[in-house]
Amino acid sequence: MNKRLLCHLVGNVVRVCGALMALPVLVSLILRSGDTMPLVLSMLIALAVGTAMALVQPRRDTLRAREGFAIVAFSWIIVSFLGGLPFYFSGYIPSLVDCFFETVSGFTTTGATILTDVEALPKGLLFWRSFTHWAGGMGVLVLSLALIPKMGARSIHLMRAESPGPSTDKLVPRVANNAKILYEIYVALSLFMVAALLFCRMDLYDALVHMFGAAGTGGFGTYGNSIAHWNSAAVDIVTGVFMALFGVNFSIYYFLIHRNWKAGLGNSELRVYWAILLGATVLIAINIMPLAGQGFYSMAENPPKDGNFFTALRYSFFQVSSVMTTTGYATADFNLWPQFSRVLLVVIMFIGASAGSTGGGMKVIRLQLLVKSMVRDIRRTVHPKSVNTVKLDGHTVDESILSGVQGFFFAYMAVLLLSTIIVSLDGFSFETNFTAVVATLSNIGPGLGMVGPTGNFAAFSDLSKIVLSLCMLIGRLEVFPILMLFSRSAWKK
Amino acid sequence: MNKRLLCHLVGNVVRVCGALMALPVLVSLILRSGDTMPLVLSMLIALAVGTAMALVQPRRDTLRAREGFAIVAFSWIIVSFLGGLPFYFSGYIPSLVDCFFETVSGFTTTGATILTDVEALPKGLLFWRSFTHWAGGMGVLVLSLALIPKMGARSIHLMRAESPGPSTDKLVPRVANNAKILYEIYVALSLFMVAALLFCRMDLYDALVHMFGAAGTGGFGTYGNSIAHWNSAAVDIVTGVFMALFGVNFSIYYFLIHRNWKAGLGNSELRVYWAILLGATVLIAINIMPLAGQGFYSMAENPPKDGNFFTALRYSFFQVSSVMTTTGYATADFNLWPQFSRVLLVVIMFIGASAGSTGGGMKVIRLQLLVKSMVRDIRRTVHPKSVNTVKLDGHTVDESILSGVQGFFFAYMAVLLLSTIIVSLDGFSFETNFTAVVATLSNIGPGLGMVGPTGNFAAFSDLSKIVLSLCMLIGRLEVFPILMLFSRSAWKK
Repeated sequence: MNKRLLCHLVGNVVRVCGALMALPVLVSLILRSGDTMPLVLSMLIALAVGTAMALVQPRRDTLRAREGFAIVAFSWIIVSFLGGLPFYFSGYIPSLVDCFFETVSGFTTTGATILTDVEALPKGLLFWRSFTHWAGGMGVLVLSLALIPKMGARSIHLMRAESPGPSTDKLVPRVANNAKILYEIYVALSLFMVAALLFCRMDLYDALVHMFGAAGTGGFGTYGNSIAHWNSAAVDIVTGVFMALFGVNFSIYYFLIHRNWKAGLGNSELRVYWAILLGATVLIAINIMPLAGQGFYSMAENPPKDGNFFTALRYSFFQVSSVMTTTGYATADFNLWPQFSRVLLVVIMFIGASAGSTGGGMKVIRLQLLVKSMVRDIRRTVHPKSVNTVKLDGHTVDESILSGVQGFFFAYMAVLLLSTIIVSLDGFSFETNFTAVVATLSNIGPGLGMVGPTGNFAAFSDLSKIVLSLCMLIGRLEVFPILMLFSRSAWKK
Repeated sequence: MNKRLLCHLVGNVVRVCGALMALPVLVSLILRSGDTMPLVLSMLIALAVGTAMALVQPRRDTLRAREGFAIVAFSWIIVSFLGGLPFYFSGYIPSLVDCFFETVSGFTTTGATILTDVEALPKGLLFWRSFTHWAGGMGVLVLSLALIPKMGARSIHLMRAESPGPSTDKLVPRVANNAKILYEIYVALSLFMVAALLFCRMDLYDALVHMFGAAGTGGFGTYGNSIAHWNSAAVDIVTGVFMALFGVNFSIYYFLIHRNWKAGLGNSELRVYWAILLGATVLIAINIMPLAGQGFYSMAENPPKDGNFFTALRYSFFQVSSVMTTTGYATADFNLWPQFSRVLLVVIMFIGASAGSTGGGMKVIRLQLLVKSMVRDIRRTVHPKSVNTVKLDGHTVDESILSGVQGFFFAYMAVLLLSTIIVSLDGFSFETNFTAVVATLSNIGPGLGMVGPTGNFAAFSDLSKIVLSLCMLIGRLEVFPILMLFSRSAWKK
């Protein structure tokens, strides 16, 4: 392991993180929210630590895969720690473990919170809290890649470690340009969403904060009852649709902009993604119809206690879109919905969004490859001698990718079961423990039971909070970069 | 698909099933339990149906893989239906779906029951109910293989479809001899267990019935409070140890009899199996120590309300052995144990027993291969260019076996999640639904919540009971034979 290079590059990322804190400082000054000092202090610490680390000059320039993964893993951990300092200095979150949990949850775009009353926090802190979603969404590192072109040549390993999905499609040959294109699409979509929310009469602050949460597929908001605060069909639909759009592989938008309709709309992952999203929406809408008299358990203050199938569709679509893209916003307390809807949502949590989006979870393309492999295995049992390959979008999928995806699936499940065992030491219900781990590992946020949309993660022990924080990192970095840190061979000379 | 051959051979299996019913008829006559008529009637029907099917003479003798799998799948389904008739004719289980569920549960050695009061049933029926475990344990078909030598040459496909575990080690070249050896070991171990139970002062009937349940790793008994009926440390330990022994790959015993110590005791699956079993025993014993004042929630009528660490070990070992071997007997209501113990038991449910034993679940050897593949994947991330193979017991494991195991794992999880969705339509708790599916898919029997050791499956809807019955079959036949039935290409000419 080239530790000096590791230190140097992680330092650069930390500096970027420090620079990003200038934004909430500005917001805090403009709105006079009284939380400027803790933000400035944290910014200075981050800049100082980052600069000190970056001063370590590497003796060699070799950036191998292992350094790439280690940089990503350490960057996320250190940035999450430093990014949590404003909450600590302001006194609003007195425990460092809780600060770390909340900020990991932000950067990994999970949206799980330990706050019992989010509305008590000043607006500068809340802005920073949500902004970590936006920054984490495309990856603090992809941002750094785009900003620091000199890293370009050796940055393919970083990109590979951080990009969601089984393979990195290169749109254009140079990595830095690649990152820039994706980033431009991200910014453009974000601006569209802010405009749409302003059009729904949301104020600018709320529109920005909730755009951060939706664009990063995070889910932090500023109100205790999430998006139900507005109790507005327009806000629900705009947020629901944009969440779904941010869960699409960003390459699709690149193809569409360049009028490559076939590569864009013909993409099979896109089709399966929408099929699952709309299929689950309809099934859940039918299932919750009997709850019309309860206003579908809307979390709004005074929801109308009636509704037709379209109202059910509105709540159902919003929730499915939120869970499938792993955002975690809520308009209704789905914890009170019938078992069938609840379990369907848990299964969708596993699936997650598309590869190459800001969303988390297993990713639709992995599900496709796993199902296709299974069908192939069945065909093989029937015709043992036939040659069977797995095809996707007309191309034969390499066996090494298939075995990688299958290995990923087991690693995911192994982390899930082991974490559930540890978290269960706290003694909460099976539903709470299991869905808390699924919701953090898939970067969603709320689960069922105690961690449902009206609940939070405050009651867990520090041990559980650290395990769940690790789950968020493991989920966001797609398992291997974090597991690698525990491997002896990675640290050998 | 060679349908005439399929019909002919399934008919033979059904005839064997009919012949097996002579045993409970005999028991019923000796004990004058008053249930002779329904048993005789069912036996005659099974013999008639079997003979009629066997009369269909195949035009060609070709037995390909797909016929092999189809024979196994259909045999289990038809035998489970016919084997359930005694319960129906006697009137003790008035619903045919319930009869099917109970008998599938018997033959697949699951032990899940829809009976709310098992002690109400006459002794002949209970004998038959438990005897299905013993017959199903080694496979009704392996029995047929051993009895009908003329099927020998073409029976490798049947053996492969029915034997648990990723690969079939052939001990001796001829399949029929192979089956006979395993069967002799099975009978010998069974007799040892009966002797041990008689030594603990159990009467012959109970000793036989509970040996059936333990040997087949099934779990049906004759008392509402399972093995806790005797409230005897000796019975607990004998049953616990024999369950664990029946969860070992039977080939190990073959090697030990032939004094091949290295192949026997050096086997890595055996070591991992015992390591998990004893490790979990100790962890759970420590976790339940605070329950000593509650008698560890023993299900005995008047359990002593005190106990030291050894008492905790007794209850813990029994339950871990019962769950890991997928038997499902209970001495304590582990549904009331702390969350940590409960979740650990659920994880052990997934793992299951050794390949080549009568136990169910994923099997220890698959877990080993999955973990080794994962470690290999991590090593690959660190050193992308190195060549890495997975080794087990000193041999390199073929990549096709690894990918088969990984595919199996996904198929298992996919069946688990889909079944949980359907079962959740009944509206029971997440814990009940999820563990009901795990407990049937892994052929264990009891789960948590409503289907805990003091509960049963009676309250589920017919749809759920059918889905859970399918889960039992899918679990027992290791997924693919049943899934294959739904594949179009299997039925093409």
